[in-house]
Amino acid sequence: MIININGEILDKDSAKISVLDRGFLFGDSVYDVTNTIEGLPFLLDDHLNRLVNSAFLMGMEMTYSIDEIKEQVKKTVQSSDIKEGNIRIILTRGVGEISLDPNVSQKNNLVIIYRERPVIPDEYYERGVPIIIAGVQRNSKKSVDPNIKSGNYLNNVLAMAEAKKFGAYEAVMLNQAGCVTEATTSNIWIVKNNTFITPPLQAGLLEGITRKHLLELAQKHGLAVQQSNLVPADLKNADECFLTSTSRMVLPVTQVDEFVISEGRIGPNTLKLLNKYREFVQEWKKSFHW
Amino acid sequence: MIININGEILDKDSAKISVLDRGFLFGDSVYDVTNTIEGLPFLLDDHLNRLVNSAFLMGMEMTYSIDEIKEQVKKTVQSSDIKEGNIRIILTRGVGEISLDPNVSQKNNLVIIYRERPVIPDEYYERGVPIIIAGVQRNSKKSVDPNIKSGNYLNNVLAMAEAKKFGAYEAVMLNQAGCVTEATTSNIWIVKNNTFITPPLQAGLLEGITRKHLLELAQKHGLAVQQSNLVPADLKNADECFLTSTSRMVLPVTQVDEFVISEGRIGPNTLKLLNKYREFVQEWKKSFHW
Repeated sequence: MIININGEILDKDSAKISVLDRGFLFGDSVYDVTNTIEGLPFLLDDHLNRLVNSAFLMGMEMTYSIDEIKEQVKKTVQSSDIKEGNIRIILTRGVGEISLDPNVSQKNNLVIIYRERPVIPDEYYERGVPIIIAGVQRNSKKSVDPNIKSGNYLNNVLAMAEAKKFGAYEAVMLNQAGCVTEATTSNIWIVKNNTFITPPLQAGLLEGITRKHLLELAQKHGLAVQQSNLVPADLKNADECFLTSTSRMVLPVTQVDEFVISEGRIGPNTLKLLNKYREFVQEWKKSFHW
Repeated sequence: MIININGEILDKDSAKISVLDRGFLFGDSVYDVTNTIEGLPFLLDDHLNRLVNSAFLMGMEMTYSIDEIKEQVKKTVQSSDIKEGNIRIILTRGVGEISLDPNVSQKNNLVIIYRERPVIPDEYYERGVPIIIAGVQRNSKKSVDPNIKSGNYLNNVLAMAEAKKFGAYEAVMLNQAGCVTEATTSNIWIVKNNTFITPPLQAGLLEGITRKHLLELAQKHGLAVQQSNLVPADLKNADECFLTSTSRMVLPVTQVDEFVISEGRIGPNTLKLLNKYREFVQEWKKSFHW
């Protein structure tokens, strides 16, 4: 693992930040994460654009430009031997007098953490993973918009703690109307009667970059796809169910609470979409340049 | 300012924490704050009990005991010349593999920040301060319980940013039912027909320690006091209005949005309660021992 703090490349043990940084004090930071594939950062521009959007939604003034951040990502990746990695880009509102007032700080801190990507076992892609419906509700858009990918992840930590308690892989959170939003670090989809369905952004969820590209891919390949509200029963009675995220691509879900889905193995539609996405990744690799 | 990190006393510039600390990555931390008065930490046990309760509510395993934390607070205060200070005690879930799963970390990090207390001008106690009703809604108890005083303060930062935009001192947040909860770092009260009214805990707010003692004091002195739901119109039409917190004690509010309260000066009931609280602080000082 190597870590870049404001341009300085550090090892794990020396990568430290002031305890007066607002990211540490208040979670007053934004972040985004992507993978490297053969040393190239997958869909970096999409992730940087989302980072800037997170900052915009919480009124964070950016003292780094997108190009400067991109330059630091490049420097970090190229300072390491890691080829199949995971890059976390964190931008905080910086250090200031201790006050909730966001105007007290003048300069962002930029932290880039680059590490080997945790391996997802092949078996997960064949037999699927179990998930739960969390008791903890997703943050309301009116309180802290889930489209701000911020250092305030306690809501998701609490949901993930529930998942781990029940031996599950992920937890899906509902909004206050009881509709499905997203899982703690992934989007959720079902297949019903050969139609792909995922909740709409209006349900209160982060616009996943994998989700966005899958919606386009499905349309391009003439697959039936909808963005519609789902309730827990829709997940439990689905023909197929899967999670999507940058690190997982398309990962089958074969158990929701105590309900087994798709006979405990990846369904044909999920497999088709996963394969289309793998092709998309190969095409991206050919077209990438810094 | 001096800072204690896991028992080591550091100055402002050397007080740093790993960027892999979950407090920095996810706001996965709890904190509490109190003042020192003549070098003694005001109501320290109340604040430490609340810190432990915050940790309990978010399922944080504590690898420091209350007594150990108290010992470190004592060490910090006694390492400094500051007599009228402000102590922030932060306990994080510590460092672990980067994952939302709270079980990956094994050991808390304890950070104690001790600094001179920002002075609140006398004029604020005479002429009061302006506040606004924030557009951003208080986090729902079902998402992140406001009784967890955690490192997830973006909800409050967003509300405070609104206050600053309108030149106000504080921002009051409503719950999803439109009822008043609390301000970003204080509780809110009104006086109507000589009765003190503050929202009940059920509205979704942190149980303020000053609030708790004021409720007891008011009862002890035979003042009429209620915990009842309030809507914004109740604040705007109040005879008197005030904020309470450890650092402010009882601070009059004389403007709510564009409505002037109590003719722009501290009201008689507010003054009476402030004076009773000042007496309470004097009595506490005599009784404190480490």
